[in-house]
Amino acid sequence: MKKFMNDPARVVDDYLSGLVRAHDDILEWDDDHRVLQRKNFPMTPKVGLVGGGGSGCEPTHTGFVGHGMLDAAVPGQVFTSPVPNQIAAATRRADMGRGVLHVIKNFTGEVMNFGMAQEILYFEDIEVAQVIVNDDVSIPDDGETAGRRGLGATVLVEKIAGAAAEEGAGLSEVQAIAQRVVDRSGTFGVGLSSCTPPLRGKPVYQMDDAEMDLGIGISGEPGRARVPLQTARDIAELMVDEVLTDLAPPSGADLLMLVNGMGGTPHQELYLMAGELGAAAEARGARIVRQLVGNFVTSLDQAGVAVTFLELDPELSRLWDAPVETVALRWGR
Amino acid sequence: MKKFMNDPARVVDDYLSGLVRAHDDILEWDDDHRVLQRKNFPMTPKVGLVGGGGSGCEPTHTGFVGHGMLDAAVPGQVFTSPVPNQIAAATRRADMGRGVLHVIKNFTGEVMNFGMAQEILYFEDIEVAQVIVNDDVSIPDDGETAGRRGLGATVLVEKIAGAAAEEGAGLSEVQAIAQRVVDRSGTFGVGLSSCTPPLRGKPVYQMDDAEMDLGIGISGEPGRARVPLQTARDIAELMVDEVLTDLAPPSGADLLMLVNGMGGTPHQELYLMAGELGAAAEARGARIVRQLVGNFVTSLDQAGVAVTFLELDPELSRLWDAPVETVALRWGR
Repeated sequence: MKKFMNDPARVVDDYLSGLVRAHDDILEWDDDHRVLQRKNFPMTPKVGLVGGGGSGCEPTHTGFVGHGMLDAAVPGQVFTSPVPNQIAAATRRADMGRGVLHVIKNFTGEVMNFGMAQEILYFEDIEVAQVIVNDDVSIPDDGETAGRRGLGATVLVEKIAGAAAEEGAGLSEVQAIAQRVVDRSGTFGVGLSSCTPPLRGKPVYQMDDAEMDLGIGISGEPGRARVPLQTARDIAELMVDEVLTDLAPPSGADLLMLVNGMGGTPHQELYLMAGELGAAAEARGARIVRQLVGNFVTSLDQAGVAVTFLELDPELSRLWDAPVETVALRWGR
Repeated sequence: MKKFMNDPARVVDDYLSGLVRAHDDILEWDDDHRVLQRKNFPMTPKVGLVGGGGSGCEPTHTGFVGHGMLDAAVPGQVFTSPVPNQIAAATRRADMGRGVLHVIKNFTGEVMNFGMAQEILYFEDIEVAQVIVNDDVSIPDDGETAGRRGLGATVLVEKIAGAAAEEGAGLSEVQAIAQRVVDRSGTFGVGLSSCTPPLRGKPVYQMDDAEMDLGIGISGEPGRARVPLQTARDIAELMVDEVLTDLAPPSGADLLMLVNGMGGTPHQELYLMAGELGAAAEARGARIVRQLVGNFVTSLDQAGVAVTFLELDPELSRLWDAPVETVALRWGR
């Protein structure tokens, strides 16, 4: 294993320490409760947003704390859900009297632990709502499994629901907008390598140079199928087909496209894929009107790329464009 | 080799195509001259800035075209300098009647080809000045070699000189500010792996799991020394020692710290290193007052990290903070 680290058991703490040191204008770390929170909460109370999950997917969720997105994030250990008490503490911190939305990726541990946190909070005077992100179209939506995993749409949910909260929307409205993003999103990922969790010390699985994995997640598990490596264009057509067949947007729909690297894929390849993915989507009659390209929902150092499409409407586009100031997304218009 | 690509010979073109497609609000590609240029030039003429070099170091320079940084970038093939005619065309495009600054990284091919472009332009009515970025402290500054390579300081030069130009400074003033950034910067990089150039199809060299390279560049060459892998803290202390011993800022100096990934190192490890590097620098009496952490001057998919320190003064800080809108750096205050 080759990583920049001190002690495999302290990677998450050391990462958080560096993150907060670099961005102490917007972030604060509560070490007692293991909550990463906004340094400056807004003067006018708004709905709070809390996201969390296993570490290793950075900048999700820690890089999305700040104005216009999350009020607090709860990082677990690598690929391990945060615990209920931690989530409850974050929720108390994020509550400004108007309720808190939990953004939960659809992984068994996360759903369970956020649920237990909600039970802990039930008798406190904090209104909690949740959205479960399940945009992974590689898994059949047939009720036979734990369901579709929450992947790239998480960023879109946190950005768009965060903007709605910042504008003053109420909890049920923020929840409804978050759910609308989930309902209108789909993601499909392709991996070229495994990843190396620090405590494991070696890749989770082996792959040949001539292979790729289809339908990857973000927790180090292999993809749902292993096939021969193809050209970027063929991979892009396959990915777009998987997502748009499932999402089935009307012809001429306005789409947001997130081209997401898994941590080990560089800028050059991500933009090369963005070009192919955009062309493939437009060949099917879609219009790509917003694009985000980079490493956002990752799996440590895995080489891979996932595409997320979101069918926009004027309200979602406006909320997407609204100002945001976090570590990993930052713009003002 | 595992990369998202179509044809190894077309990686640069396909990347540029995806980049411009994703950012057609700010970028335009002139395929005849192979120049990436701003879509919207300012209404008020200003000094133009042109940067360029071998591809494979993305987002340098292509990701830095836009308001507040470069007016045009000239990408060569992977690890190969752009050609003189290409640089001359970019200079003509960037000229608004107030002259053009060439930002040149100190690599033999780049220095030569920018120089030849300047000869081509000599009889045209375009004033050209240059700055040669040579911040690599791993190479002795002894006149015995081609000198120190241009590394992470390139981003700082382009940002700060770009802001000065945007403010209306004249060519000699923009050049002087660029030179001040070079004079007050130093960089040292550590590699954990080689990188794989598309046309080569395999890593440039092999490294054991227990080794790391000290004094890496950005063109696929091995480091200047190969040593046993150390902890993040020890690596950070070594890197800070190399740069600050060379730069020798006064005690209590205000520093900008760029923690730069080489393309294959994820967010988690970069921020972990940022924490260690910041602590090591502050232990030596420096104050880190600006930080930038991410993959900015890369070497394809190499795993590695470099640190650049810039000794700030009030003017450099103000120009650093000035608004910028490019693919890879984007902020407004």
